[in-house]
Amino acid sequence: MTAIAELVAALAPEKVLTDPDVTDTYSRDQTFVEPGRPLAVVLAHSRDDVVAVMRWATAHRVPVVPRGAGTGLAGGATAVEGCVVLALHKMAAVRELSPDDEIAVVEPGVITADLDRAAREHGLMYAPDPSSYEISTIGGNLATNAGGLRCVKYGVTRDSALGLEVVLADGRVIDTGRRTVKGVTGYDLTGLFVGSEGTLGVITAATVRLRRAPSVSPATIGAEFASLRDAAAAVSAIIAAGCQPSLLEMLDRTTLKAIDDWRNIGLADSTRAMLIAQSDAADGAAVSARMAELCTANGASFVAVSSSARETEELIGIRRMAYRAQERLGKCLVEDVCVPRSALPYMIEKIEAIAAGHGVLISTVAHAGDGNLHPVFIFDRALAEPPAAVWTAADEVFREALGMGGTLTGEHGVGLLKRRWLSLETGPVTEELHHGIKQVFDPLGILNPGKAI
Amino acid sequence: MTAIAELVAALAPEKVLTDPDVTDTYSRDQTFVEPGRPLAVVLAHSRDDVVAVMRWATAHRVPVVPRGAGTGLAGGATAVEGCVVLALHKMAAVRELSPDDEIAVVEPGVITADLDRAAREHGLMYAPDPSSYEISTIGGNLATNAGGLRCVKYGVTRDSALGLEVVLADGRVIDTGRRTVKGVTGYDLTGLFVGSEGTLGVITAATVRLRRAPSVSPATIGAEFASLRDAAAAVSAIIAAGCQPSLLEMLDRTTLKAIDDWRNIGLADSTRAMLIAQSDAADGAAVSARMAELCTANGASFVAVSSSARETEELIGIRRMAYRAQERLGKCLVEDVCVPRSALPYMIEKIEAIAAGHGVLISTVAHAGDGNLHPVFIFDRALAEPPAAVWTAADEVFREALGMGGTLTGEHGVGLLKRRWLSLETGPVTEELHHGIKQVFDPLGILNPGKAI
Repeated sequence: MTAIAELVAALAPEKVLTDPDVTDTYSRDQTFVEPGRPLAVVLAHSRDDVVAVMRWATAHRVPVVPRGAGTGLAGGATAVEGCVVLALHKMAAVRELSPDDEIAVVEPGVITADLDRAAREHGLMYAPDPSSYEISTIGGNLATNAGGLRCVKYGVTRDSALGLEVVLADGRVIDTGRRTVKGVTGYDLTGLFVGSEGTLGVITAATVRLRRAPSVSPATIGAEFASLRDAAAAVSAIIAAGCQPSLLEMLDRTTLKAIDDWRNIGLADSTRAMLIAQSDAADGAAVSARMAELCTANGASFVAVSSSARETEELIGIRRMAYRAQERLGKCLVEDVCVPRSALPYMIEKIEAIAAGHGVLISTVAHAGDGNLHPVFIFDRALAEPPAAVWTAADEVFREALGMGGTLTGEHGVGLLKRRWLSLETGPVTEELHHGIKQVFDPLGILNPGKAI
Repeated sequence: MTAIAELVAALAPEKVLTDPDVTDTYSRDQTFVEPGRPLAVVLAHSRDDVVAVMRWATAHRVPVVPRGAGTGLAGGATAVEGCVVLALHKMAAVRELSPDDEIAVVEPGVITADLDRAAREHGLMYAPDPSSYEISTIGGNLATNAGGLRCVKYGVTRDSALGLEVVLADGRVIDTGRRTVKGVTGYDLTGLFVGSEGTLGVITAATVRLRRAPSVSPATIGAEFASLRDAAAAVSAIIAAGCQPSLLEMLDRTTLKAIDDWRNIGLADSTRAMLIAQSDAADGAAVSARMAELCTANGASFVAVSSSARETEELIGIRRMAYRAQERLGKCLVEDVCVPRSALPYMIEKIEAIAAGHGVLISTVAHAGDGNLHPVFIFDRALAEPPAAVWTAADEVFREALGMGGTLTGEHGVGLLKRRWLSLETGPVTEELHHGIKQVFDPLGILNPGKAI
């Protein structure tokens, strides 16, 4: 019996896809990276399916690439040659939702926004909301420790993960963490798996923390600035005033222009940056008014304060349109540096200077309250990969961010695309520890090889 | 040259203490555990001192027990025979405090409350506040992932740790994490070191997150109940109503009686439990009034609402007196189980039943909002260790908590005292992973051997 025949026997024929046209669609994420050809794609329906795959993969030394919805931006779910892609999107049950304990137990294929909606039926919410949250899965969010817009107030995915059910490389199953908000028994394996990009185990369920949903509709403002530095100063002022925004986003002119060309948002010629801020506090209207004042005091040329849910939708819609507007300009290399908040204006100016210096189009959106910037490097759609100038510019952006005490990646992960720069941030001793940990969990090196570390 | 002479030569004579009377005082924490005799105590003044100790310890295969203020409640800092106790309390510099980035970089010997006070000069606070925060150190808090009263709103120590400087077992130094609130480059080593009780490395500095301090004085209530179940129901109601208390503590009658006997707080005969709740929100007075209503609606016999800072101090003072009042009753085994919040009333009733069943005096205080209970087992002062009945009762408490989806330890750590029960919570596969990780970081097994895992 061939290895694949054994796999089919261990699962069921309809769960093992081998038609190259079909497997190719499961081999890519949102990046331009050309994948290797998988032996097969497995559609896991249960934890037992995952156990069967990992036992088989261990027996045959076959690499396994776990996959959620394929919305990743760093190549983390890109198939490697001769692997099995382990697709988890069909494991999409909310196993439990406990309003009393404010937790849910979910399978990895649950769409993030669906969990949030399920929680809201009980007056709760699932806070992490990556921009992809209507199409990305909890499993993918956990694998990359995804952030989002609300994390300026509620933290990243790690901050909502209490415990995990994980299938190890050899098919054994462990439960990490607990159903409580506190607990310090043993090493923090939950934290170790979150953000490990499928290189240490396959998450088959997660116990996540829900939070009380805000009792009022969030109050939102949009502020336009003739200078990026002024917009950044307004961000600092909003944070320093203790406004605790539930969302604080910045868009640069290139991004705004792309949105305006597509959907006509009435962009003024003088506008170089826009801030969108929201408060979901009980006194959110007053807080938003205060944020508007702070924008004006820091030079905003125009401030819109939403007075209805529809106007809030419109303002947030501008932010949510950004990536699709950028994609209309060409192929996109989406980057994800994060710097200390005070370094935000310098980082933005550096990005502009780097773009100009290399003749590269960079369109930047920032989770400004977190210092997390997404400079999107746009290049010719006819090219398979970014040209040298883009990589040179990206290299300079990474080095600047690290020089400011920042990081290569705030929320997207290292995947394949940032591995070249990893050692700049971590250094050789930490790399040795990473590889030591990898060896403990995956001694054969079959879990998502070549990614993350 | 003897090993100790080499250590003295690598440091300075005044940093190496060998007088047994002196070293004995550095060999104990707050537990009754009889320590081993250390070869020496090193008073580290700098990271380089720590590097020198670890290089020497690696060369001579000498166990090293890192130590903060010795306020631990699980035996984590208890000396082992023939070790060097590495005392870090003299490394107490706040290296940096950046209001703009809302972070501080601190050495491990900084007293937790001192950091909080330093932050408050800038309108910020350091949120984690274990009951020992006036005497415990940041390093100890990190080692045990300490909680506290405010963590019901602001999270545990891990949630405030952004990055660490760590000296490894062989004396090499790494920096984990970053100065930003987000970041996913590589595995989460910061999370791995936090709560690892000195078994993976020695933390010599931490970059911690500060938060905006509340702009108003917190509003506080104290509510007395004739039934533990009613008090627990009030806790659930307060959480479910979205009050987001910044503190939500429960004391049982045994504890209240001990406090009353000591300081006369006017305890009514009918009072079986007391809740103390606080809101530090901008509308805290209204929130506290709402919490008071919910207590009354759930059967509180008396509710005090503080109308001044002095009254708040008095209410919080009752909670802060608890441990010293318990110590007046006898020797204390302080336990630390945590259960899902909805299980709180059942757990409290189980504890009462177990106490009655074994004729053991148990005095319980709970961080009720987190489901984290501290049943304190009180035994005869003449005994060196708890009698068998106490251990039997404790064993039952642990098993009940685990059966409810809880944990052995919410915030104190495993140390020496809870190792017997560790495998009940973690299971053999996770234990194997723990030991694999330990082997990566400390292949000679010299870092705090016999603790935590």
